[in-house]
Amino acid sequence: MSDANARKRRVVILGGGFGSVYTAMHLEKQLKREPDVEILLVTRENYFVFHPLLPEIVSGNIGLFDTVSPLRRLLKRTTLAVREIDSIDLENKTVTLAPGFKPRQSVLDFDHLVLGLGTVTDFRNSPGLHEHALPFKNLADAVRLRNHLIHVLEEACIEQDPALRRQLLTFVVAGGGFSGVEVCAELNDFLRRAIRKQYRSLKNEDVRVMLVHSGARVLERELGEDLALYAQSILTRRGIELRLHTRLETATPGAAILKGGERIPTKTVVSTVPSSPNPLIESIDLPTDRGRVKVDETGRVEGSDHLWSLGDCAVWPHPDGNGVCPPTAQYAVRQGELLAGNIAATMKGKEPKKFGFTGLGKMGSLGHRSAVALLFDKWKVSGLFAWFIWRTVYWMKLPGFDRKLRVAISWALDFVLPPDTVQLRVEGSGSVGHVHYEPGETVFEEGDLGDSFFIVLDGEVEVVKKNGDGQDHVLAHLGPGKYFGEMALLQTRTRTATVRCSKPTRLLSLKQRDFGELVANLPELRASFEKVADERSRDNEELAETAVESNE
Amino acid sequence: MSDANARKRRVVILGGGFGSVYTAMHLEKQLKREPDVEILLVTRENYFVFHPLLPEIVSGNIGLFDTVSPLRRLLKRTTLAVREIDSIDLENKTVTLAPGFKPRQSVLDFDHLVLGLGTVTDFRNSPGLHEHALPFKNLADAVRLRNHLIHVLEEACIEQDPALRRQLLTFVVAGGGFSGVEVCAELNDFLRRAIRKQYRSLKNEDVRVMLVHSGARVLERELGEDLALYAQSILTRRGIELRLHTRLETATPGAAILKGGERIPTKTVVSTVPSSPNPLIESIDLPTDRGRVKVDETGRVEGSDHLWSLGDCAVWPHPDGNGVCPPTAQYAVRQGELLAGNIAATMKGKEPKKFGFTGLGKMGSLGHRSAVALLFDKWKVSGLFAWFIWRTVYWMKLPGFDRKLRVAISWALDFVLPPDTVQLRVEGSGSVGHVHYEPGETVFEEGDLGDSFFIVLDGEVEVVKKNGDGQDHVLAHLGPGKYFGEMALLQTRTRTATVRCSKPTRLLSLKQRDFGELVANLPELRASFEKVADERSRDNEELAETAVESNE
Repeated sequence: MSDANARKRRVVILGGGFGSVYTAMHLEKQLKREPDVEILLVTRENYFVFHPLLPEIVSGNIGLFDTVSPLRRLLKRTTLAVREIDSIDLENKTVTLAPGFKPRQSVLDFDHLVLGLGTVTDFRNSPGLHEHALPFKNLADAVRLRNHLIHVLEEACIEQDPALRRQLLTFVVAGGGFSGVEVCAELNDFLRRAIRKQYRSLKNEDVRVMLVHSGARVLERELGEDLALYAQSILTRRGIELRLHTRLETATPGAAILKGGERIPTKTVVSTVPSSPNPLIESIDLPTDRGRVKVDETGRVEGSDHLWSLGDCAVWPHPDGNGVCPPTAQYAVRQGELLAGNIAATMKGKEPKKFGFTGLGKMGSLGHRSAVALLFDKWKVSGLFAWFIWRTVYWMKLPGFDRKLRVAISWALDFVLPPDTVQLRVEGSGSVGHVHYEPGETVFEEGDLGDSFFIVLDGEVEVVKKNGDGQDHVLAHLGPGKYFGEMALLQTRTRTATVRCSKPTRLLSLKQRDFGELVANLPELRASFEKVADERSRDNEELAETAVESNE
Repeated sequence: MSDANARKRRVVILGGGFGSVYTAMHLEKQLKREPDVEILLVTRENYFVFHPLLPEIVSGNIGLFDTVSPLRRLLKRTTLAVREIDSIDLENKTVTLAPGFKPRQSVLDFDHLVLGLGTVTDFRNSPGLHEHALPFKNLADAVRLRNHLIHVLEEACIEQDPALRRQLLTFVVAGGGFSGVEVCAELNDFLRRAIRKQYRSLKNEDVRVMLVHSGARVLERELGEDLALYAQSILTRRGIELRLHTRLETATPGAAILKGGERIPTKTVVSTVPSSPNPLIESIDLPTDRGRVKVDETGRVEGSDHLWSLGDCAVWPHPDGNGVCPPTAQYAVRQGELLAGNIAATMKGKEPKKFGFTGLGKMGSLGHRSAVALLFDKWKVSGLFAWFIWRTVYWMKLPGFDRKLRVAISWALDFVLPPDTVQLRVEGSGSVGHVHYEPGETVFEEGDLGDSFFIVLDGEVEVVKKNGDGQDHVLAHLGPGKYFGEMALLQTRTRTATVRCSKPTRLLSLKQRDFGELVANLPELRASFEKVADERSRDNEELAETAVESNE
């Protein structure tokens, strides 16, 4: 990429969201008569996701690919690099990309750099959510959530244990902003429609969908009290339980834990809340505000003449003089257009222009032909009419004729066809995983089938076995660095004791197949397991069957 | 499932392919007035795949879900269990299912059992293909292949090294039957169309698509010489290279190896060839012929009155007295209908009927509005007319109005819209993997970025470093049980020596992140790595940097 065009000037745009893609689209127009300027966009995916319609993928109202456009179709002149970004060097004006098929990095140099890196889902500081909450940010998240919902319905149909069936049919969504409300509404619509049409052995009243929000009303911050109350009445009527003034504290493989410790047994926790600035921003020396790049009213990084930033990765002063531009698509799109003009102007030695857009309004879908909207900060609209505006506005904004056509057809088909419940499992289950438990929860029970081996990272578990008179007898406490569960894998498939957690506990889990291969091929590991197994069978017959203390 | 209906008679059908699903559909009709008989279908996926149209997913002619129907929509009365099957007990008339969310098996008892388990992709006896060939059997395979093709195009666009770009743009498909030809044709269509419309920096002549077939002509066994020659001329005209009288011997991460050792550098090897009987059949005591269940002309397992089998999991005598029924959908569908009638008849104490279907013909698509067909074993049809028949026949056979509508719309859109090149990556890359190399191939080179640790399972690698005057210096030979590559992970990201294979070699690979966690948490493992690292830094400075011999 770099050698052939060494003499060309190059604008490098990082990111594939609204801001970056619209910058590239408008730069192509601005630089139409400047063939010696190269535009290069670095993105993780080769498509552009139209986020506002992402929740509709969950309900199946629109097809999997309807909300996404191949970037190569939107950007005819821009060079695309579908790669991860390893690092940015502002001094030497280079960006280093992660390796592709060949394990070498590639280095791009730039004349102008646009940072449109957006935010990342960041559960790192939320133990439990990191391991067990489903994020909802990109296309893969939407597909995964949909597959998971179908999986849970299938299992609920053949589950005989009423407690487990209730747990399977409980769904917890955290976050009462636009994103949380829209996902919750679409998820609720999909489940109830699927049960009515296809999972007839389940009952509508068995399904429990909960929306957890820390404020007094959902959407109140976005739309004000009136519309918030309206939205809540619609959501409640559709069967969604609102849990206000509380917070999703953590999650385990079998429960959502709310603030104060309330435990809701569920296999489905969706969290739309935690998004953090892209960590790449931290790694470079730029003026920032809580991880986001500070720019002036022209989009230029403070104190620079060739660095630009926009969208939710930038702190951009609002044109009305109060605060900063909100991190929404309508702002990002217009910032992109401005930035394209400003970069072109700067290249010609002209002055960049200031941002003048002050917002058109806010809208949120409530699913099933209902929505709420606040237009031009004064007109409040709700119900079917708002839903009609919502669909029309977003449909018109969909980039490209083909997507418009596909979405229109999908919406039309949705009126006549039953819901689609095909579960597309293409993901291989990762072999090394993390699991988080709260005190009192069970990792596995005596008699369960074992398919994983566990190492304690933090916390403590206790190994318990029922003795002759049916009482629990604690055989061992295992803390960090200890492992358990390997006996079931090495000898038989059934667990010979129960393991439960006495503290908040984080475990590393390894699948049977992979564990077996590592043990077979790493002689140290095998020797140590054999030694410990021998010791135990001499010392303590019962303990030997269930847990191993590592021989530190 | 079992307790509540203990007094009901139950027909259990195993498998979700044409044979099983059509048996269940017709049983629902046959048993309309017998509410005390339960029909239960056990399947791995909750949808039915219309296989003949699967290759069109690769080219994007039809949408991802167009070829699949949710089973619950096709089967209104049948109880579905979307689970893996653990075992079958013929004596006690039970089937044991693998655990779902709860780690306990469930046991189903049956009065009649239908074995429609189909075949499984089996690369186990083909080292190299197991690790590196893409199978093409189910929906997930089609999605994975499509994603891989797009990934390769994206990388080819930004690759500067001409040899690597040639390798990326070479595609090898093995198998000259219907399946291989159709996949190859659709893959070729998709690539050339995508390059023309969207990957404009690539050239059509840079793309090399090869079809490898062991016979003298592709499709000759299926359609005879005339049509085979016609098909070959069409495929060749479209730019497909035919490699006849040869075989795909093995594959490595960077090449397809043909019979005789010819090495074709490529990142894409598709194999449609190896399908084996389902291993469950072997595990039960039934009369079989090369792993397939022997049945009589009524579909009943020889010597039994309640066991049935059909489709490609059964050896079913052909009604014309010659040989057995071919393993195709048109036979399976009709066998299913007959079996449903026969099971219902047996339940009423009547005699089962014999199979009388002798086939309507054979058809294969050549992609892009061309096909070949042999109708009623006498009429040969080819070209646009055959393609029209092909589409019409399969469209009419698609189960359900909604799929018919969706496929019709997709086909119509395909005429007006450009190809879709969205790469849907939802699969997490597995952390423990297997890699196969042939002699002389390089695992990694000095200076590469390291993200994996390797254990030698079979074969031998040599660790090589260039010395001062640029000559290769072999530092070590590592055989089974030895490991290498961990230094780059523990200390820096760059490999300090080259590792290449001196024999056919199978490696176990573990990703950096997971390797790090295991080493950090399994004290034995850490201690042994540290000890070996110490020894090496004393003994041999150079070797220490690059490879570790395990301390057996």
